[in-house]
Amino acid sequence: MAISTRGDVKDLSLSARGKDRIEWAAEDMPVLRLIRERFIKDQPLKGVRMSGCLHITTETANLAITLKAGGADLVLCASNPLSTQDDVAAALVSEYGIPTYAIKGEDDETYYRHINAALDHKPNMTMDDGCDLVSILHTSRSELVENVVAGLEETTTGVIRLKSMEKAEVLRFPVLAVNDSDTKHMFDNRYGTGQSTLDAIIRSTNRLLAGRTLVVFGYGWCGRGVASRGHGLGANVVVCEVDPTRALEAVMDGYRVMPGVEAAAIGDILVTVTGDINVIDQDHLEHMKNGVLIANSGHFNDEINIPALEKLATNKRRVRDFVDEYTYSDGRRVYLLAEGRLVNLSAAEGHPASVMDMSFANQALGAEYMLKLAKDLEPRVYTIPADIDKEIARLKLQSMGIRIDTLTSEQEKYLNSWESGT
Amino acid sequence: MAISTRGDVKDLSLSARGKDRIEWAAEDMPVLRLIRERFIKDQPLKGVRMSGCLHITTETANLAITLKAGGADLVLCASNPLSTQDDVAAALVSEYGIPTYAIKGEDDETYYRHINAALDHKPNMTMDDGCDLVSILHTSRSELVENVVAGLEETTTGVIRLKSMEKAEVLRFPVLAVNDSDTKHMFDNRYGTGQSTLDAIIRSTNRLLAGRTLVVFGYGWCGRGVASRGHGLGANVVVCEVDPTRALEAVMDGYRVMPGVEAAAIGDILVTVTGDINVIDQDHLEHMKNGVLIANSGHFNDEINIPALEKLATNKRRVRDFVDEYTYSDGRRVYLLAEGRLVNLSAAEGHPASVMDMSFANQALGAEYMLKLAKDLEPRVYTIPADIDKEIARLKLQSMGIRIDTLTSEQEKYLNSWESGT
Amino acid sequence: MAISTRGDVKDLSLSARGKDRIEWAAEDMPVLRLIRERFIKDQPLKGVRMSGCLHITTETANLAITLKAGGADLVLCASNPLSTQDDVAAALVSEYGIPTYAIKGEDDETYYRHINAALDHKPNMTMDDGCDLVSILHTSRSELVENVVAGLEETTTGVIRLKSMEKAEVLRFPVLAVNDSDTKHMFDNRYGTGQSTLDAIIRSTNRLLAGRTLVVFGYGWCGRGVASRGHGLGANVVVCEVDPTRALEAVMDGYRVMPGVEAAAIGDILVTVTGDINVIDQDHLEHMKNGVLIANSGHFNDEINIPALEKLATNKRRVRDFVDEYTYSDGRRVYLLAEGRLVNLSAAEGHPASVMDMSFANQALGAEYMLKLAKDLEPRVYTIPADIDKEIARLKLQSMGIRIDTLTSEQEKYLNSWESGT
Amino acid sequence: MAISTRGDVKDLSLSARGKDRIEWAAEDMPVLRLIRERFIKDQPLKGVRMSGCLHITTETANLAITLKAGGADLVLCASNPLSTQDDVAAALVSEYGIPTYAIKGEDDETYYRHINAALDHKPNMTMDDGCDLVSILHTSRSELVENVVAGLEETTTGVIRLKSMEKAEVLRFPVLAVNDSDTKHMFDNRYGTGQSTLDAIIRSTNRLLAGRTLVVFGYGWCGRGVASRGHGLGANVVVCEVDPTRALEAVMDGYRVMPGVEAAAIGDILVTVTGDINVIDQDHLEHMKNGVLIANSGHFNDEINIPALEKLATNKRRVRDFVDEYTYSDGRRVYLLAEGRLVNLSAAEGHPASVMDMSFANQALGAEYMLKLAKDLEPRVYTIPADIDKEIARLKLQSMGIRIDTLTSEQEKYLNSWESGT
Repeated sequence: MAISTRGDVKDLSLSARGKDRIEWAAEDMPVLRLIRERFIKDQPLKGVRMSGCLHITTETANLAITLKAGGADLVLCASNPLSTQDDVAAALVSEYGIPTYAIKGEDDETYYRHINAALDHKPNMTMDDGCDLVSILHTSRSELVENVVAGLEETTTGVIRLKSMEKAEVLRFPVLAVNDSDTKHMFDNRYGTGQSTLDAIIRSTNRLLAGRTLVVFGYGWCGRGVASRGHGLGANVVVCEVDPTRALEAVMDGYRVMPGVEAAAIGDILVTVTGDINVIDQDHLEHMKNGVLIANSGHFNDEINIPALEKLATNKRRVRDFVDEYTYSDGRRVYLLAEGRLVNLSAAEGHPASVMDMSFANQALGAEYMLKLAKDLEPRVYTIPADIDKEIARLKLQSMGIRIDTLTSEQEKYLNSWESGT
Repeated sequence: MAISTRGDVKDLSLSARGKDRIEWAAEDMPVLRLIRERFIKDQPLKGVRMSGCLHITTETANLAITLKAGGADLVLCASNPLSTQDDVAAALVSEYGIPTYAIKGEDDETYYRHINAALDHKPNMTMDDGCDLVSILHTSRSELVENVVAGLEETTTGVIRLKSMEKAEVLRFPVLAVNDSDTKHMFDNRYGTGQSTLDAIIRSTNRLLAGRTLVVFGYGWCGRGVASRGHGLGANVVVCEVDPTRALEAVMDGYRVMPGVEAAAIGDILVTVTGDINVIDQDHLEHMKNGVLIANSGHFNDEINIPALEKLATNKRRVRDFVDEYTYSDGRRVYLLAEGRLVNLSAAEGHPASVMDMSFANQALGAEYMLKLAKDLEPRVYTIPADIDKEIARLKLQSMGIRIDTLTSEQEKYLNSWESGT
Repeated sequence: MAISTRGDVKDLSLSARGKDRIEWAAEDMPVLRLIRERFIKDQPLKGVRMSGCLHITTETANLAITLKAGGADLVLCASNPLSTQDDVAAALVSEYGIPTYAIKGEDDETYYRHINAALDHKPNMTMDDGCDLVSILHTSRSELVENVVAGLEETTTGVIRLKSMEKAEVLRFPVLAVNDSDTKHMFDNRYGTGQSTLDAIIRSTNRLLAGRTLVVFGYGWCGRGVASRGHGLGANVVVCEVDPTRALEAVMDGYRVMPGVEAAAIGDILVTVTGDINVIDQDHLEHMKNGVLIANSGHFNDEINIPALEKLATNKRRVRDFVDEYTYSDGRRVYLLAEGRLVNLSAAEGHPASVMDMSFANQALGAEYMLKLAKDLEPRVYTIPADIDKEIARLKLQSMGIRIDTLTSEQEKYLNSWESGT
Repeated sequence: MAISTRGDVKDLSLSARGKDRIEWAAEDMPVLRLIRERFIKDQPLKGVRMSGCLHITTETANLAITLKAGGADLVLCASNPLSTQDDVAAALVSEYGIPTYAIKGEDDETYYRHINAALDHKPNMTMDDGCDLVSILHTSRSELVENVVAGLEETTTGVIRLKSMEKAEVLRFPVLAVNDSDTKHMFDNRYGTGQSTLDAIIRSTNRLLAGRTLVVFGYGWCGRGVASRGHGLGANVVVCEVDPTRALEAVMDGYRVMPGVEAAAIGDILVTVTGDINVIDQDHLEHMKNGVLIANSGHFNDEINIPALEKLATNKRRVRDFVDEYTYSDGRRVYLLAEGRLVNLSAAEGHPASVMDMSFANQALGAEYMLKLAKDLEPRVYTIPADIDKEIARLKLQSMGIRIDTLTSEQEKYLNSWESGT
């Protein structure tokens, strides 16, 4: 294992391959490219020390390159022990000069050491994917908080944690909830998580989806995407939800809805995307069919109660990459994918570049926006202004060669009037 | 044409049939039934004078019966000249004792006379579907405003108008935007408008959808529904939008997106659901294919520029119920459905009872809510509290025999904490 | 009831409206139009006496006009007591001079009297939709068989009956199984029955499909269509089949498959499309949920065991057009649509013109083909030659403005060679 | 490169991993397992010398194990230079004692040497996937034909070649067209090729499908599958066909249909599944958009005119595994996947076990069937009897725990009668 003065990655010799793959992703990130071109001229992040705790993928690399192009002094660390692409980490260090602390499969101790290394950079600005960096900043490394003018958060899970901090009045600097942009959660969470989760399940198992019962726990943006893509691949989809409005939406979308334990007993494939803990719990695990596949595509690996699974099983072995077989005492076998870590980043390559293009356009423009406004902001959770959000959508459409109409002045006036009726 | 002292309907002899159909709808409105049962005991609307300007359908009849059961002194009028179901209007008057002013196909003069008749009731509370009643109350009948403590509005279009009034500071009493409830727009606008719009197109034309190019103008909740159902019937769907985020969503949903004039030139069937004016304008009309069907499912009949169509055509004749053939000088024939009025209510029966159950549960509970709070409210546009909204969803699921999970205390605690991480 | 010397229809005064509707259908039947234009010149059916037992719809009218244009001396009768469109029957008689015996809602006695009237025409050629005419010709009117040189049959059900006759060696003239043309069953049975069945269920009930459990009995071409369109409207589809390959296909298409009695217990809407008897039998009827809708879209009204339903019910009443409510002694209510007759023709308008265009192009070209070959044919069931079948598809594409590629000579040669490999 | 006396594989040390993966596939091949259990007892292939030219995958390994269990003396070789899974080939040799000649990425010379090695086994029976073995048997190795009693062929492409041979009267022994079984082509070709083709495209590129234009050349069973799965992943699908009936079916299924050159100009991803040559030809290649992905999922690598592509390009480089970038002189870049070889087997793992279970059940039972009947058969192409075909479907349903109805005697009788009518 290589230890670089400029980071900690698995193997720097992978960097050529990493560069190729980063450039491949770049081709499908035209909005970020436009932003990068402007950043080179405008230098909006000049001299800003940034620490990013993100999934180290080809798409993230393109964001990092963009931030650096905008003047940022940037350090990266992994936001999940299994999501790092080692060739990308190597390329970031040796091809792009961005210190990176991330090794696929690192243990928990290394994971936190890497986060601390990123914090040692004494950031003025943080960028998080799940709020681990900000959380540590507010606890064991609170001496560094005073340097920070603003943060940015990418995920649903992270935003939930930040709002808890805001509510508990412990948040100490303003944070932009990038996840709340329409051009982020409506696309990345839905189409990105949707495709990549199914991709990961198929890559790791080569199982046919058609004719299988796919149980999706959670019908938020990610769950809608997973259900839609699973259905599109021929699975019979069952949805489990705790929110009645979402549950009803799933029913109206043509899916069956039922309590989790009942669903667990009939599912061939189970996926959690909730942001909550023990969604597949001991009770569910006890009722599973022989041969069931279980995967998590939510942020943390506690959506499935793995300790309970370990207890239920009398035997455990790895049967394929990312597939662990747990055998129960009655002979039933249950297959856990990617150790319960977010499967799309662990067993596949994460969200395709095309959606990350918009998510990271929000990050890049969000960083610029927060820096400009930071001194006027309270330590609360903010969202990106609608005009930036819509501008990203407009650039994306443009890059795809798609033209749309604009309102005529007659139509604008009509929408603002109330007198004319039937 | 019968003139009743208790309303103005087409033919009271239709009332038996109307009653049968109202009861048929009632069977698919279980949430409203539960509310009605409580209202009978609690009398929350006792003595309240209400004027409702609504589509006079079997579902609306059930709302009216519920409001009356809750103690309201209620009068109804049509909210669209073509949407009235004459047998329902008759039954309301003679079977349920609810004065109703509504005749299918009434002319504009009668339409406004009917609204004024409903206002003569001197309402304390208004209920609108498109804001016509409130609009007239604020202009020609402003002497009546002082009696009104609150209003309720059902539609996207009406809410747009009310927000214009609020912004212009002319709104004189608080109005509840029922449309903004999740259990309203996510279901009624999407699944209700979706199915009933296609139903109306098929009823009036008996054309096969499979293999046709269906152009949907507008990708809001209604447009999403129309696109989804058109696709589900085998049409190749094209979406036209002015909002880039919505346009991008349509693209990601697998539809083609293009400027309206281009779409108009390739579409076999065109549907407007925008809430705006002249969405199909002269330019679009000039480029249509021979044999195209045009329909509007937005609230007002000005989404299609019918005067321009009248000018373009050298001949016009009715070829089937609700189908007018316009022949251009070059021989092309264009078919306008339901005179450009909202086609699902004109050429079919409007939204099915099952979704109106939730929309009207919002109206009934919203009326109770607004009455309770009215004296503390400013003359602004309000939304229903989330707990009432979710309770409606919960009752609906229950009525369908669908059970869902609830969060464990461990899960609730987890969602409120921010410390635990990867 | 009018009795015309040239047929027996309900009311000749409906003929103007019927003519408008026939012309409306004609606009969406371009292939049949091209055939008609050629028939006028070629007179391929000159002097042939034809008796057609068909659903008297706007599309059938266009076939009849085409056959007459080709020289045939044609008489029509209804092929189902509920499927006749009275205005079309009137127009056939008084506008197009084609004797027609058909009245919507006729009783069984009248139904058979009408068939016999059509046979009194002493046909040289028969055209059937369900094989009733041919069946009677072979039994009570066998004296007429000697005049017949050939027959044509439109439906799956009719072809099954004819093959039984062939197998039993009782068939006395050659019959063309029009149903077996690809351009017939792949389109008419699938997309036509699919859309029109759902159309009929919605027209007669105005129930929302989204979120309902739709049980489809039979997964042949019709069943696939009904399942697909039901799914496309948001229903959760369950399929019941007796053929394991079809059952497996339904599973792989993402539907649940289970025994009929189990499905009957969970379905909100049940549709039979099997061609068999008592598919919904007493056992199924006993297990239904309260409020269930039952419809048949197969050819005969014995797919649902209506006598068993009549016995189970303590009360029966009509609650809407085409909707009969049966109340069980335990209070459950079951709704039978269109008296169990094929619902798409009874409660809606049958298959849209666009698909009947191809089915009837097969009939018209099939009649010409059989006449030419009749003397060389045995009394067996024949299918239309592939080149006629494909030509119909080609003309249809052309009429839709769709161009496709043709094989290059290199490609043709490649497909006929076997030497070249990997 | 290892040369074994019992075959020629890449690296025998991969065999443990290969065995794990073969067992993983076995778990999803329950029908083949049942057959294997019977074969062990019955020994239906005892002493039969078999040579199989098949894709060397985990599923094929399970077929080979079954044939060997049934008594066959079996040798295998690759049916495509890129489709071999090296760990499986290793395991076949060292774990299962089945001589195997296959190395992923082997050159053409090796490929044919391997086929010849398999023929050196002097087979009594052949098993082909694309007809290469049979083709060579009839040409350069015709001295071996006299040993052969029968052959079996797996693919559409192979069956086309065999029918050419039959038509040209050069076929010298009977061959069973396994592809023509319903339980083969309706499932393997559609759901198998459908999922695995999209899987391969995503694995090799990590591109988002949603919002992309996917052009599918060919709308046979494979093409229907690819179109359906592409659509299910959010792509906007365009179909190119030369057969008018299939083209029309694609239109009715909601896809756009157009000539290939026009489609090539708008597609983001192009897939060929036709069984023909130069389907994407120079003309198509010249009109492509920048960044387009091209893949073939048909049997041979001549569906795309790669020599023309090589000529058009001024530069070529590999940018990711299985992705070759061709740069045109005007700067456009075109990406060819898996060198134009069948992409699902080259860049992913081929058809999932679940469908191969049925295809290979047909192979195993087909081998038994042909052996029994061989002496009575002419040198022609045969299909498997319907009862074997349906039995496979029945076993598959059973293994999935799905029960279906059987006809009652009343229903059987009804289907065989013709007298009862309306």
